[in-house]
Amino acid sequence: METNPRQTIIAAASHFYQLGWMMGTAGNLSVRIPDGSFWITASGRNKGELTSTDFVRMKLDGTIIEQPHPDVRPSAETSIHQTIYSLFPEAEACYHVHSIEANLVSRFTDSDNLPLPPLEMLKGLGVWEENPQVTMPIFVNHLDLPRIAQDICDRFEITPPSVSALLIRDHGITVWASSPREASNFLEIAEYIFRYMVAARTVGF
Amino acid sequence: METNPRQTIIAAASHFYQLGWMMGTAGNLSVRIPDGSFWITASGRNKGELTSTDFVRMKLDGTIIEQPHPDVRPSAETSIHQTIYSLFPEAEACYHVHSIEANLVSRFTDSDNLPLPPLEMLKGLGVWEENPQVTMPIFVNHLDLPRIAQDICDRFEITPPSVSALLIRDHGITVWASSPREASNFLEIAEYIFRYMVAARTVGF
Amino acid sequence: METNPRQTIIAAASHFYQLGWMMGTAGNLSVRIPDGSFWITASGRNKGELTSTDFVRMKLDGTIIEQPHPDVRPSAETSIHQTIYSLFPEAEACYHVHSIEANLVSRFTDSDNLPLPPLEMLKGLGVWEENPQVTMPIFVNHLDLPRIAQDICDRFEITPPSVSALLIRDHGITVWASSPREASNFLEIAEYIFRYMVAARTVGF
Amino acid sequence: METNPRQTIIAAASHFYQLGWMMGTAGNLSVRIPDGSFWITASGRNKGELTSTDFVRMKLDGTIIEQPHPDVRPSAETSIHQTIYSLFPEAEACYHVHSIEANLVSRFTDSDNLPLPPLEMLKGLGVWEENPQVTMPIFVNHLDLPRIAQDICDRFEITPPSVSALLIRDHGITVWASSPREASNFLEIAEYIFRYMVAARTVGF
Repeated sequence: METNPRQTIIAAASHFYQLGWMMGTAGNLSVRIPDGSFWITASGRNKGELTSTDFVRMKLDGTIIEQPHPDVRPSAETSIHQTIYSLFPEAEACYHVHSIEANLVSRFTDSDNLPLPPLEMLKGLGVWEENPQVTMPIFVNHLDLPRIAQDICDRFEITPPSVSALLIRDHGITVWASSPREASNFLEIAEYIFRYMVAARTVGF
Repeated sequence: METNPRQTIIAAASHFYQLGWMMGTAGNLSVRIPDGSFWITASGRNKGELTSTDFVRMKLDGTIIEQPHPDVRPSAETSIHQTIYSLFPEAEACYHVHSIEANLVSRFTDSDNLPLPPLEMLKGLGVWEENPQVTMPIFVNHLDLPRIAQDICDRFEITPPSVSALLIRDHGITVWASSPREASNFLEIAEYIFRYMVAARTVGF
Repeated sequence: METNPRQTIIAAASHFYQLGWMMGTAGNLSVRIPDGSFWITASGRNKGELTSTDFVRMKLDGTIIEQPHPDVRPSAETSIHQTIYSLFPEAEACYHVHSIEANLVSRFTDSDNLPLPPLEMLKGLGVWEENPQVTMPIFVNHLDLPRIAQDICDRFEITPPSVSALLIRDHGITVWASSPREASNFLEIAEYIFRYMVAARTVGF
Repeated sequence: METNPRQTIIAAASHFYQLGWMMGTAGNLSVRIPDGSFWITASGRNKGELTSTDFVRMKLDGTIIEQPHPDVRPSAETSIHQTIYSLFPEAEACYHVHSIEANLVSRFTDSDNLPLPPLEMLKGLGVWEENPQVTMPIFVNHLDLPRIAQDICDRFEITPPSVSALLIRDHGITVWASSPREASNFLEIAEYIFRYMVAARTVGF
């Protein structure tokens, strides 16, 4: 675990921005450090141009510990990161991005579970089965972000997800993992699967 | 506000060119400076290879103040930039580009208003509502550019748009904002929404 | 006009390669120099990794004037470049690439003329009309390349094309222009129009 | 033939990663050296960030000859590389990647042969015919990788493929060639053809 993961996050954000997953100021990325607090991208910043002053450090309860300047505010979506780190002690990184395909597939079903196709790539999400039948949880979007965080908490305490990822309808994907590198891998694979699903539907599968 | 924003515009043009929004010599970008004049890209230049001599500086009434060489001419589309800066005193940057998706969605309706989908990304255009219902104004294309500028002026004086963006049918998008950075963000988000709309129609939504 | 345009061609080929228009060893680019001969990319080279020894220089009749090594051979498609330079004395660059979209649109009609949509971008191909009705000529592909070249010659001597571009069915686009920069612009705009056409058909237009 | 082809493989993997063909840790690339052994990418590495310690060197029978560290393990898919090098003595490089389009086209037919469209680009796979009718073999995916390798061996000993490529359903493409450069070209061309096939079906061809 890194004690100052901001350069790691800046590099990841720049990469996701170039892939079209963090357009404008969308999305937020966080990494937890050994003392249990986490660094998270500040609100309203263009994610292709982050610098080390575009972050705040928070405790799990939301208390701000480090803030380069009072106008560098945490995003309202921080509540989702707090929830993920609380629910999953092994999670050291939590990445939330908004790809077009994540939004599209969140509307492929009206239910709160998205079935994933049985691609070999699922192995990268930890699914090692022949003809796997896996779903990704979907949550309803709310203007009130803490309400989404509460929904996630309520549901996952009862039914943990089978992959380390969740969708908010019309509002992108969130993944968590035991390291920033693994979180990037999970994100790449989930987005790959979403692109596959959109293309598959496009060709009439 | 910058007094010499040409490097900022060159960087933005190169970025948009790489994204496929300024192919060949298409599009033009301008930034207003403190004295009220604005720098705008010259006509006929490849937007991936601009240099500081590929600009003219104009007053709001269209008078050319600075011109590196007499054959560096302002685009006929300059009239649209003049109109935007006149209508919106807070606008300091005006970016016009031609993406494929902007052209496609301009034909998704025969009316002069394009309904936008209720994506979370709308927050980046300043729309903070649950299940927002927002439209983007569409204008008819004319070979005579000042006629389009006049249409924009006539319509927006009566009905200001709910987002800082407009479409000309078959002829791309124009955004304006209080800074070049914000104009880039608006453009990224609008294009994201257009790509979503095209993909959504492709999958049969 | 440059007397040694190889660096210009290498940069153009690398750019087109990155755009997916010159995959593997596909396509060939040439530029004419003041003495009337032209430099053309050699056969069988990966177009993303050209060096100055991957070219031959030829006279308009196909005679090789410069060749870095006997195994650096001109492509069989050279006959098309000879035909273009013979037919169009003002042409100083001729670029042939194979995009997926160029191949797809070559099958949008069974006729030998592809109607182009009335996009503003047509101005970049020299079409300045309100609601323009323009077509691009299509030729039948043959394994025998000189036969295609002859077809082009026969047809264009009687009916010159309205834009400086032609399609060979399943076999990409060829553009020509008065400079390498203009040829790149023409290519970018033609490919933009093809992508638009494919996307438009995909959404059911 | 190179004796230490790891830098060549790193560059190829980085390129394929950027093209979206090796997302997360997917895929593996190998190159055979003069003594008959081959270097292959290790399991579980992100393919956009390989270093020279992310490889193992193996004999054709699977014996590991060089391994930078005991936790750098060969992938289970190594068995497919062994089979390819055993079947095709002229093969010096074997590349396996997972593009979205390769997975989609593997479901365009229920049979074990995918018909390819008659594109000019087929010349890059060695097919020099007018209106060529070529197929690419498809194999069933199994969790047990050596079983796939055995299927490939059994089938190709009886019926060699007409192009140097095979698909595993839902599990990407494998190509082999007489050099790393040629393997990259084959991969580019095969993926081009897959993208064409997906787009063609999307527009209703």
